[in-house]
Amino acid sequence: MEIVPAPLARLISGFEKLPGIGRKTATRLSLHILRRPAGEAQQLARDLAELHSSINMCDNCFAFSEQNPCRICSDSRRDAGLICVVEGPGDLLVIEKTGAFNGLYHILHGVLSPMDGIGPDEIKIDALIRRIKQGGVREVLIGTSSTVPGEATASYLSEKLQGLVTVSRLACGIPMGMDIKYADEHTLARSIESRKITVQK
Amino acid sequence: MEIVPAPLARLISGFEKLPGIGRKTATRLSLHILRRPAGEAQQLARDLAELHSSINMCDNCFAFSEQNPCRICSDSRRDAGLICVVEGPGDLLVIEKTGAFNGLYHILHGVLSPMDGIGPDEIKIDALIRRIKQGGVREVLIGTSSTVPGEATASYLSEKLQGLVTVSRLACGIPMGMDIKYADEHTLARSIESRKITVQK
Repeated sequence: MEIVPAPLARLISGFEKLPGIGRKTATRLSLHILRRPAGEAQQLARDLAELHSSINMCDNCFAFSEQNPCRICSDSRRDAGLICVVEGPGDLLVIEKTGAFNGLYHILHGVLSPMDGIGPDEIKIDALIRRIKQGGVREVLIGTSSTVPGEATASYLSEKLQGLVTVSRLACGIPMGMDIKYADEHTLARSIESRKITVQK
Repeated sequence: MEIVPAPLARLISGFEKLPGIGRKTATRLSLHILRRPAGEAQQLARDLAELHSSINMCDNCFAFSEQNPCRICSDSRRDAGLICVVEGPGDLLVIEKTGAFNGLYHILHGVLSPMDGIGPDEIKIDALIRRIKQGGVREVLIGTSSTVPGEATASYLSEKLQGLVTVSRLACGIPMGMDIKYADEHTLARSIESRKITVQK
């Protein structure tokens, strides 16, 4: 006998398809929603239903936006000569939050991962090169993650962009506020190699 | 400048209201949904919208069900003389999954927690006592968690049910398959006190 009511089971399956959500969490979330007033579920349903119809991809940088080109690409106060290349839209959000970057972005929507069948044609690399060839770009800051596929993508891009534009990479090192005793050896080694001279003799 | 498109921000806020989902996870889930085909978001939206209208609470045991009384309460093959009292509907699901229980349930929809203002009137205790007084109940198995509020609720119930019905409690002890070296001392102490005699002299 199936003891989970069918509509609840359908919602659990729906949540289970989301990344990082297993059967237990999906069940917990669904039961929580069921216990809360129906209006809250309706609101979440409306937000979900409207999502795709009101958000598009920016033709220039491939960020998700309500307008095209996106607010960042169409903001004249931003430095259009500097492009930060990131893996996905979530990376754009975290970089924006720092307030330390005033250029434009280019969202790859993926990283090179031959094992998963993701080669250069599967991510927005050609569009980046076209964008640079149109002129006006001074520097490309590669902001992919410091993971194996992120680094592979960064190497591939650096090679592709050679001769076209100045290329930089996010610095690796000890996280701010971290006791160096707890830093892993690779990070520590990288932070020694990339040390910054603070007082010149 | 707000860089998160408003419809995306609304969905993020909606997910953030769910238990155990913080801003980062809510953002990750929302971006995932945005990257997937619109049909998937629409399906999840429909499942959410239909949830409350098609599921009710069983008048007998307070489980969520499409029918009233629920499938368990209306199943004549189940032992109506044995009632397992649980905190919430999720507990019913995990107990059903064991296949070791063939009685009926009673969902309290909460536990006693004076600090949070949850007293006996806030959970379905009166309804349980009324149910028992109607007759036909032989034993009440208290299946609340082995947490402080769960144990407090179990003690309160045991007292309330004294003289009315036989009361039992889920056994505490070493989890199956666990090396006793890793068991915490309270659990181990409880499993010694509750030891089972396997060979009688």
